[in-house]
Amino acid sequence: MDTRTGLPVVGMIGGGQLARMTHQAAIALGQSLRVLANDVDESAALVAADVQLGSHTDLDALRTFAKSCDVVTFDHEHVPGEHIRALVAAGHKVFPGADALQYAQDKHLMRRRLSELGAPVPRWAPISSAAELVAFGLPAVVKTARGGYDGRGVFVVNDVEEIIDLLASGAELIVEEKVELRRELAVQVARSPYGQVAVYPVVETVQQDGICVEVLAPAPDLAEDVALGAQELAIRIANELGVVGLLAVELFETPDGLVVNELAMRPHNSGHWTIEGARTSQFEQHLRAVLDYPMGDTALAAPAVVMANVLGGPDGGMSIDERLHHLMAAEPGVKVHLYGKQTRPGRKIGHVTALGDDLADCRARAARAGHWLTYGKALEA
Amino acid sequence: MDTRTGLPVVGMIGGGQLARMTHQAAIALGQSLRVLANDVDESAALVAADVQLGSHTDLDALRTFAKSCDVVTFDHEHVPGEHIRALVAAGHKVFPGADALQYAQDKHLMRRRLSELGAPVPRWAPISSAAELVAFGLPAVVKTARGGYDGRGVFVVNDVEEIIDLLASGAELIVEEKVELRRELAVQVARSPYGQVAVYPVVETVQQDGICVEVLAPAPDLAEDVALGAQELAIRIANELGVVGLLAVELFETPDGLVVNELAMRPHNSGHWTIEGARTSQFEQHLRAVLDYPMGDTALAAPAVVMANVLGGPDGGMSIDERLHHLMAAEPGVKVHLYGKQTRPGRKIGHVTALGDDLADCRARAARAGHWLTYGKALEA
Repeated sequence: MDTRTGLPVVGMIGGGQLARMTHQAAIALGQSLRVLANDVDESAALVAADVQLGSHTDLDALRTFAKSCDVVTFDHEHVPGEHIRALVAAGHKVFPGADALQYAQDKHLMRRRLSELGAPVPRWAPISSAAELVAFGLPAVVKTARGGYDGRGVFVVNDVEEIIDLLASGAELIVEEKVELRRELAVQVARSPYGQVAVYPVVETVQQDGICVEVLAPAPDLAEDVALGAQELAIRIANELGVVGLLAVELFETPDGLVVNELAMRPHNSGHWTIEGARTSQFEQHLRAVLDYPMGDTALAAPAVVMANVLGGPDGGMSIDERLHHLMAAEPGVKVHLYGKQTRPGRKIGHVTALGDDLADCRARAARAGHWLTYGKALEA
Repeated sequence: MDTRTGLPVVGMIGGGQLARMTHQAAIALGQSLRVLANDVDESAALVAADVQLGSHTDLDALRTFAKSCDVVTFDHEHVPGEHIRALVAAGHKVFPGADALQYAQDKHLMRRRLSELGAPVPRWAPISSAAELVAFGLPAVVKTARGGYDGRGVFVVNDVEEIIDLLASGAELIVEEKVELRRELAVQVARSPYGQVAVYPVVETVQQDGICVEVLAPAPDLAEDVALGAQELAIRIANELGVVGLLAVELFETPDGLVVNELAMRPHNSGHWTIEGARTSQFEQHLRAVLDYPMGDTALAAPAVVMANVLGGPDGGMSIDERLHHLMAAEPGVKVHLYGKQTRPGRKIGHVTALGDDLADCRARAARAGHWLTYGKALEA
């Protein structure tokens, strides 16, 4: 507890944009997020009052960090499970726990566990040789079990020759059928240690090159029973895996129904729309969950909400500050979130959110705003 | 400019809750608010990464502070005008400027200027003796020209004897007629150096003992022409006084129409509802204004928005953290803002906001939530 305020201290391991936005939510709750960052220039370290520098793989740094926190949680999924267990053994609260987090860290474990639970997943198999891959059938999707994100570690394979080096690398791999994809959906659910859950409306996520570029909330033209089924599936996974905090369940919509693609156990890009678009943001909800506070209302704050990611674009001779001026002049109602990051082509440097009564209008406004920030020029009609 | 982000640095003098909430808004815009605070335990100093300790009356501290900012602005109105002029003379941007801010610092100057402009004000006069007060007529409202806030420095006087000590103190005083008050209203308007203005819907403010306890947005049962007139008045005052940043115009509704009560040139308690209740919060709008960014949309985010202040209450044997649990369980849709302050009876320690379709429902929810935080028990029906 912070003796100055009488309120708990949540520590977040990792200083990226998720910690940055969680700090904003913590401020409203009377708190100040404590952040373990690698560098003073990281997104969250630029804005938080209470930053410890250190690596998420350094157990000594983690121990020091945890001692000054009431609860420890994560900006990313890269903290080794044995370190989490060591912190818990020392009496610290860490959410989500290692037993849950392993399923977000390891795709092989995740697929096996979801199959055991009878949750819908693509046909899959572990593979360790070209022969096993051929036996599974091509084309298919090969994934490294560990370490992938934003499309890295995921390979659409038509011919074994394409991944011969990967097969020889010794990396643990799984293969999945290439499903007939109608679109991608996602569901956020929060779960407290007590077991209270709160689930958000199902959203549609639009991907480009494996990176989420746009989120539509609620997912348009989704049958009510399918939406309800997706929410129930997310709740069941959170319960069965013992998740505490936010769980994002990424789904493929196929002609045969929904299948689970990925799990993330933290606030997630597919939930950034909740900052203005839901009564309770995913960042506040994550704090409530790890603190065992009662969950907040997940209702939509507007009939249509669209989030568009802002990626680093070509230089184009216009500074980010000038781009922001143009965006604000063109779209006075669009909400901007910049992460304080140096621009690099393809890097997520922020997002924008448009709210309103009409989905098509919100998409157009978010696209125009995102285009200004990414390219420094107007989107051609 | 912050060379790490390519975005401007706004410095705010004063480390209270207004700076705290402005920091939240700055984070979204890719910035980090720089704060000049008296103490490490002040509301904003607890949460901001970039804090300089120093007094707002110490010109050397102000000079050091201003050197590291692109623009300097204020959490309160207590910085001496000559210090502001000295910073501007040294080449710093300071908004609002001393010429505008004097009207928020000195009620005598404000009343004289508004009278010159033909703006509606209560009948008033400067007084320096009991005889002048009697000549003005009693009962009346006597105010110290400088230094008052939250009802301090304001005296409803029925008999000269009641303020005989004040009259003898040498404090500069004005007297105003005790208007027949139907209710109090307020309007927020933001103005940029370029002169762009953005005005928010008119709200009703409910006061107790001179402290704002509740704000209803939009003001219920207000004729459209009266609302429009109030917005036009606020815009005219902002323009005539050369305000840059937020201006809050507090109004009395009387049988003869609206009259101006007070002016504040900063984000203001009567605008806290905008955080969730308007597309652009007053804190973001203030940053946009002082940076000469295009203004944001001021539209309501819900048909009805109610803010209730949370004051420090009796101890009652329940910690603020326990009170927060009860509030969250009882009112999952109410938004909480705690300022990280030690509880003292009557001190503003936070606020809550309820949004929805029905004003009466929002008032009831906000009242229940505020009651839990203030008293640590349920509001009796």
